[in-house]
Amino acid sequence: MGSNPSIFGGRQPPLLVILSGPSGVGKDAVIGRMRDLGLPFHYVVTVTTRAQRYGEVDGQDYYFVSLQEFVELRDNGKLLEWAKVYGNYYGVPRDPVRKALAEGRDVIAKLDVQGATTVKRLVPMAIGIFLAPPSMEELRNRLKQRKTEQGRDFEIRALRAQEEMQALPIFEYIVVNEDLDKAVAQIQAIISAEKCRVVPREAEL
Amino acid sequence: MGSNPSIFGGRQPPLLVILSGPSGVGKDAVIGRMRDLGLPFHYVVTVTTRAQRYGEVDGQDYYFVSLQEFVELRDNGKLLEWAKVYGNYYGVPRDPVRKALAEGRDVIAKLDVQGATTVKRLVPMAIGIFLAPPSMEELRNRLKQRKTEQGRDFEIRALRAQEEMQALPIFEYIVVNEDLDKAVAQIQAIISAEKCRVVPREAEL
Repeated sequence: MGSNPSIFGGRQPPLLVILSGPSGVGKDAVIGRMRDLGLPFHYVVTVTTRAQRYGEVDGQDYYFVSLQEFVELRDNGKLLEWAKVYGNYYGVPRDPVRKALAEGRDVIAKLDVQGATTVKRLVPMAIGIFLAPPSMEELRNRLKQRKTEQGRDFEIRALRAQEEMQALPIFEYIVVNEDLDKAVAQIQAIISAEKCRVVPREAEL
Repeated sequence: MGSNPSIFGGRQPPLLVILSGPSGVGKDAVIGRMRDLGLPFHYVVTVTTRAQRYGEVDGQDYYFVSLQEFVELRDNGKLLEWAKVYGNYYGVPRDPVRKALAEGRDVIAKLDVQGATTVKRLVPMAIGIFLAPPSMEELRNRLKQRKTEQGRDFEIRALRAQEEMQALPIFEYIVVNEDLDKAVAQIQAIISAEKCRVVPREAEL
């Protein structure tokens, strides 16, 4: 009995958590709050070719790279997954995730729904959390308020967001982002519960 | 989309939670603390033929009944499960659980490992939480400190507790009861996470 560490509170393997949801739902705000609270995660930083937005920090919000740099990373197998979204490329660097997990650290990756679907396929033991808006109307409002979107762009994103809602079944958990603090507390509860699983989800990649 | 209530924070079905673990691990203390905190559960009260211990309240800790009353309940199908343990009979009344779930209330049942095994077989969607001691030595110490156990009785219980540890795999979660507040917080996190499941565990009985 004593030889099984998991019975007596032995260390669980680290978790790979995917935070996803439709465009405009507030994934950045949630991750930002989790960072502010100092929650002990390795936060995955996505590589992108899109232009840096006002207020975004290179190396924290994204790694901003040229198209050529992106193509090199991709072709050298350095990306866990990659996608072209609205004409820009996005990718998840593989090595930092692998390294963090090997060090026993929990990892959280903010991914669009397409990226989350790919990673769930590659790493079935990843814990998928779908961040949902309180309503589709609310989601449209949030997209409208985004300074970066205008006219046609908005309609495309609103339509896409509606399609993205259909991906819900590939996720384990749904958290409604009505109140930021409450959403973060629910995510913390999910992590905490996952740490208590008798059969832990051990992510391998 | 809007027709699916679960996406936008619609009410989840109520949960049936089983709290179990070896004799002496502190199940009563955990349930007591949850009650004190006013956590919104229907707390299942077990029927027993064993003698009332000092400080125990009839109808709260147990329903204390005669052997004849117990046999009548059992033979009329009024018990979800029953068992004979150390010469006494214990049973879980079915109707109050069914009624609470029908009213949309979460239900928590404190069960010995044998009872938990039976209920998990009858209601596979029940959420099994195994309360574990920090170590077997600590469990033996706790059993020793129980005023009600003496000499041989203690050895039987210690042996049984060790056997009961083997039942861990039938449970979904393990919570180590080293610190009462921490154990209760973990149980709360588990409940909270279960409420966020995309595919909820809907208990039927």
